[in-house]
Amino acid sequence: MSVISITDVLAGKYPVGESISVHGWIRTRRDSKAGISFLAVHDGSCFDAIQAIVPNDLNNYESEVQKLTTGCSVKVTGILVESPGKGQAFEIQATAVEVLGFVEDPDTYPMAAKRHSLEFLREQGHLRARTNIGGATTRVRNTLAQALHRFFHEKGYYWISTPLITGSDCEGAGEMFRVSTLDMENLPRTEKGDIDFAEDFFGKETFLTVSGQLNVETYACALSKVYTFGPTFRAENSNTSRHLAEFWMVEPELAFAHLCDAADLAEEMLKYVFKALLEERPDDMAFFQQRVDKTVLDRLNNVISADFVRMDYTDAIEILQNCGKKFENPVSWGVDLNSEHERYLAEEHVGGPVVLQNYPKDIKSFYMRLNDDGKTVAAMDILAPGIGEIIGGSEREERIEVLDKRLAEMNLDPADYAWYRDLRRYGTVPHSGFGLGFERLVAYATGIGNIRDTIPFPRAPKTAAF
Amino acid sequence: MSVISITDVLAGKYPVGESISVHGWIRTRRDSKAGISFLAVHDGSCFDAIQAIVPNDLNNYESEVQKLTTGCSVKVTGILVESPGKGQAFEIQATAVEVLGFVEDPDTYPMAAKRHSLEFLREQGHLRARTNIGGATTRVRNTLAQALHRFFHEKGYYWISTPLITGSDCEGAGEMFRVSTLDMENLPRTEKGDIDFAEDFFGKETFLTVSGQLNVETYACALSKVYTFGPTFRAENSNTSRHLAEFWMVEPELAFAHLCDAADLAEEMLKYVFKALLEERPDDMAFFQQRVDKTVLDRLNNVISADFVRMDYTDAIEILQNCGKKFENPVSWGVDLNSEHERYLAEEHVGGPVVLQNYPKDIKSFYMRLNDDGKTVAAMDILAPGIGEIIGGSEREERIEVLDKRLAEMNLDPADYAWYRDLRRYGTVPHSGFGLGFERLVAYATGIGNIRDTIPFPRAPKTAAF
Repeated sequence: MSVISITDVLAGKYPVGESISVHGWIRTRRDSKAGISFLAVHDGSCFDAIQAIVPNDLNNYESEVQKLTTGCSVKVTGILVESPGKGQAFEIQATAVEVLGFVEDPDTYPMAAKRHSLEFLREQGHLRARTNIGGATTRVRNTLAQALHRFFHEKGYYWISTPLITGSDCEGAGEMFRVSTLDMENLPRTEKGDIDFAEDFFGKETFLTVSGQLNVETYACALSKVYTFGPTFRAENSNTSRHLAEFWMVEPELAFAHLCDAADLAEEMLKYVFKALLEERPDDMAFFQQRVDKTVLDRLNNVISADFVRMDYTDAIEILQNCGKKFENPVSWGVDLNSEHERYLAEEHVGGPVVLQNYPKDIKSFYMRLNDDGKTVAAMDILAPGIGEIIGGSEREERIEVLDKRLAEMNLDPADYAWYRDLRRYGTVPHSGFGLGFERLVAYATGIGNIRDTIPFPRAPKTAAF
Repeated sequence: MSVISITDVLAGKYPVGESISVHGWIRTRRDSKAGISFLAVHDGSCFDAIQAIVPNDLNNYESEVQKLTTGCSVKVTGILVESPGKGQAFEIQATAVEVLGFVEDPDTYPMAAKRHSLEFLREQGHLRARTNIGGATTRVRNTLAQALHRFFHEKGYYWISTPLITGSDCEGAGEMFRVSTLDMENLPRTEKGDIDFAEDFFGKETFLTVSGQLNVETYACALSKVYTFGPTFRAENSNTSRHLAEFWMVEPELAFAHLCDAADLAEEMLKYVFKALLEERPDDMAFFQQRVDKTVLDRLNNVISADFVRMDYTDAIEILQNCGKKFENPVSWGVDLNSEHERYLAEEHVGGPVVLQNYPKDIKSFYMRLNDDGKTVAAMDILAPGIGEIIGGSEREERIEVLDKRLAEMNLDPADYAWYRDLRRYGTVPHSGFGLGFERLVAYATGIGNIRDTIPFPRAPKTAAF
């Protein structure tokens, strides 16, 4: 069957006066005293439902049409006409309504046409895409993902799928999920009595990755411009509105590039995807603006038009110390910044996005490039008004002798980083990159407060339903 | 720094006669008796390297240029000129060569400029993208992935990220990886003495998903046209050239659609992505044709121009029984087909892609829609010459009473499928979909024989390096 999308009908892609059929689900039914029914039929292709006007002379008007409730599925055939009322431009004068599926018990249907709490919708993860907010979030999420792929593709970046199951524990094993096929009731043991992971599926202990960065660096050091876009995992027991155990990350990596190039790329990327979102999904964004966060359109437009301010960590500390504001966490050179500091800088001091860079080396990772001062590394965080940190990145240490010194300082075994060191031994190049948590991007773009509502089936402590 | 891509230079995007700088790695160096050196510099942006002609009057000619070996990284500045030789249109008359990184010990550099076996390259996963075949495979993989996203986006499909960590074991737990943060040396126990998964991170036993289909059906039953493109996992102990423990799958799902619609979509999709590949990567495809598989271009062109033949399983059995060919595995109605049968049908009988459909219900999954004959289900496999099955799909059983009967027949507990059953209780609709293993697509498009060479860091039994 060739199915017409309601988004195309509402966009005027079909000629008025002709007969069409649409398929979808009933959002609402209203009966007039004059003996006609108004059906709002949606198919998820856009925010709006289309109105079908159903006369009472249809064969199944009493037996079926008048029994339609929210969530029933139908095929509506009729003449496409211009809508006399305000709101939508088109509606359908129905000549036939075929019921594909009723709702078993409308009184207990979880998605009845009323406002539901986000907490309730989360429990109904298999049905929440049927609601206004569930559908709008999914379409926005798709638009942002498509725009990200398009942005990198147009700029000549190659998408790299870095592995999810990893045998290297160089990323911080404490917060990783173990992946295993060992029989937990009959664990194989070595002679010494340890669990014998040589017997496990991969012949060693394996985990779910927390970042594709180290892997994707190998591809940047061959193809120059690459990015990952895939799932990553954290076994952190953080029951907050900002953490997920399973989430998607975007990690571009550029060869022959310094920190400033990564910052430029990040700024360009954010502007590109927000512009695409405003252009492609005005319907859903109007909904978020009205019902979720009245600042969301302004916020995105501000990011699009702003020049992101570059600021050194050292200067930021001075600003925070002298601003006269009392912070919960006191500030001094060397401390990591908290959300309160980041938001003050972006929202109050600058009034726009800030690229904060050159952090003290002691609060950053071993792979970040040591600056000439010997105290700071070429790391950056991008802070955005309304959310704080949205992107973190760095120039990578490409000098083998400096890298080795950093590994030693941090008591890391160079043997565990043999392949990573090889990139520095064989034709090393300056390179930089950053990571963007995709769900945080969706939350920022929609104003959704809890990150669990930005992904179809959230995974978090004690939460893995569906 | 603003870096120029070599692909743009070779495509004529920069004016001849002007000075440019390119960054990249040395593929080869050749010195002439006349006292000039020819450097082949590649940056991974395309298959070809650009030639730089370096005169011996540069300051660092003897000290550095003459020491350049394969894999060294350089910045070459010079005048872009038309190339007098055949091969490439442009080359660079170098005025400066800056060495960014030497190769530590050229004699032991694993990626020396010679032909390497694929097995050897697999062990050098962090460096293999530097080779011709590693780079070409990565660019082809990217082009196919981008084309898939673009295809679905243009047709109004929404990308859905289905969960990777799953608590439902309804997909066949025997072949799944367990995900856990329990301390294996101190497993918590229930009063009965069982392992207490309530103490695990997610509060229950969890695994890595083998398919996003059941989850994505919930989104098709709300947004009509959706697809997944993400990693999936199999803990099968299959050490073959066709299996990976971690691989990427594309799974579109269409509401208001029958099996024939899914078959049409699959045919259109394959043609679209192969056309994009031939248009966008003629350089890499010429390499695969010359060096990997001399039939690969014909094969893709045949898929693009063929009308995929639709054939019923029952007819296929008759054809196989009467074709006079001796198969290793004998054929009769009710058996599952093997690769030898599939390839006979596609390669010898039809001479092109075949959509084989309506399989016996007993060899297929519970969720496939029962046909009116009561014996077969609306399932399909798409068979392609040169590989056999490349896509598998079905119409899903949307009738709750038929689904429940199938669950009972297969001794599955309906309680485990409560949310899946809800889709049939609340406004059920006909819907169909299919799955495409992305790495098999890459293998098919390149002629690469072992699927482990189609993904950056392959995961397989006893294999999880990097």
